Amino acid sequence: MLNKIAIIGGGLIGSSVARVAKERGLSQTIVIADTSGEARTEIKTLGFADRVVADAGEAVIEADLVIIAVPVRAFTQVLQAIKDSLKSGAIVSDVGSVKGSVLSDMQAVLPDTVHIIPAHPIAGAEKSGPAAGSAGLFQDRWLIITPPAQTDKAALETLHHFWQGCGAMVEIMDVSHHDEVLGVTSHLPHLIAFSMMKTAADLESETQKEIIRYSAGGFRDFTRVAASDPTMWRDIMLANKEVMLPLLQRFTEDLTILQKFIRRGEGDALHDYFDKARTIRKGMK
Amino acid sequence: MLNKIAIIGGGLIGSSVARVAKERGLSQTIVIADTSGEARTEIKTLGFADRVVADAGEAVIEADLVIIAVPVRAFTQVLQAIKDSLKSGAIVSDVGSVKGSVLSDMQAVLPDTVHIIPAHPIAGAEKSGPAAGSAGLFQDRWLIITPPAQTDKAALETLHHFWQGCGAMVEIMDVSHHDEVLGVTSHLPHLIAFSMMKTAADLESETQKEIIRYSAGGFRDFTRVAASDPTMWRDIMLANKEVMLPLLQRFTEDLTILQKFIRRGEGDALHDYFDKARTIRKGMK
Repeated sequence: MLNKIAIIGGGLIGSSVARVAKERGLSQTIVIADTSGEARTEIKTLGFADRVVADAGEAVIEADLVIIAVPVRAFTQVLQAIKDSLKSGAIVSDVGSVKGSVLSDMQAVLPDTVHIIPAHPIAGAEKSGPAAGSAGLFQDRWLIITPPAQTDKAALETLHHFWQGCGAMVEIMDVSHHDEVLGVTSHLPHLIAFSMMKTAADLESETQKEIIRYSAGGFRDFTRVAASDPTMWRDIMLANKEVMLPLLQRFTEDLTILQKFIRRGEGDALHDYFDKARTIRKGMK
Repeated sequence: MLNKIAIIGGGLIGSSVARVAKERGLSQTIVIADTSGEARTEIKTLGFADRVVADAGEAVIEADLVIIAVPVRAFTQVLQAIKDSLKSGAIVSDVGSVKGSVLSDMQAVLPDTVHIIPAHPIAGAEKSGPAAGSAGLFQDRWLIITPPAQTDKAALETLHHFWQGCGAMVEIMDVSHHDEVLGVTSHLPHLIAFSMMKTAADLESETQKEIIRYSAGGFRDFTRVAASDPTMWRDIMLANKEVMLPLLQRFTEDLTILQKFIRRGEGDALHDYFDKARTIRKGMK
């Protein structure tokens, strides 16, 4: 059990961390900082934090563990706000979908006296706000910790235990490897989903209606993630730029090969390609 | 109620048509033709056809309604087998995902004395074979009929009623328009799913394992359709070539625009793009 945890940002993820920490007694004291007065009132009413403050710097004083759960665009501002108030030996972590940029930002601003250990819970993101959170959000979901080289073992273990306490299945991964894997499993699918909606939107409105009507043929599942928050996804794409650009390049090449097969009527090549894809997909369950 | 319906091909779709026709008494006699001895034995055991034969030509004699439910590659062969045995005034229909090519094939081979009316039930295709069928497969699912110009009204109405009797929600659509709409809602998503699996497959095997593990982040839903039958999808892509090529072109352009925004760090443009896509997606439910 921790003495004090400070959660910066009381949105879906931050409030869910607070809820589960409260419910399972993972920390003696839970403080949430949120710059929105509306969110603070809501969090106070919901009652899962011991203290709710506006100032992140105030929230982190004496905290053993600080979890930054704000949108990427507010991240640097939070680091500036907390850097002089962190106690020596505090663990500073986050919940973002891209880890490389977060780690450099943290290392550039935070003092050497704290343990910087980024983390990423792979859990729901289509809703938002304090009320959308739940204590079960991380139950049996993956949580990837991406410790930089020479991370203090005890600090890593503390963070590991904390997230296990939240119900998550914890994995340790190299920062850049995390960004590559998530680029494929999450960021590229989102980009394609947004792009497909745009392709559909350019069709005449009568056709659009029919696309909506007959979207059960694959399109609906396919584009579900295109309903996600545009700001968050803009930030993710830009933060993971170094991974996304070569990945998009490769994907476009693969699609262009298919296009060529169709244009030339190369049925055997098309079949081979689909068959290989199917075999891999079947192994995935 | 029809006097006799002939179903050519007793796979998932064909056997489901037979099951529901039998269960709801939509036809006095139900005959299924299948070239596979194994399939014929299975259909006989399952008992939803009054007669099971090998020869499509024999099956269609005196049939009021003929539904061709064979893979595209076997289609022309079936047309040749039945063309001289069809009774005058018979309705000849099908269940394929691409309608333009089917219509030309039918019009080129079948006599003027029959009513050619292609149709497309938008219903499950990830399983196959007679045993995979079910009487409820078409219940509350869309079925699109694409009658050519000057289709006989009474014949169209008969087919319409038959499919309503199967539980389907029937819509009438222009042939080429159908292929365009389905290109977007179904064929393109499948192509992208196959392509994404290929992109993933080219990564080193350790990364592949992790992609499988963390695929809940979008990738799993996204690539589910890549487990579909490669032969069927090869045929669909080639049959709908005239729609797929410009559609792929447009999709690649849209994706390339996103790529450029990411490369240049154009956050506002990226946000606008995502926001528009999200608005359309939200209208879809």
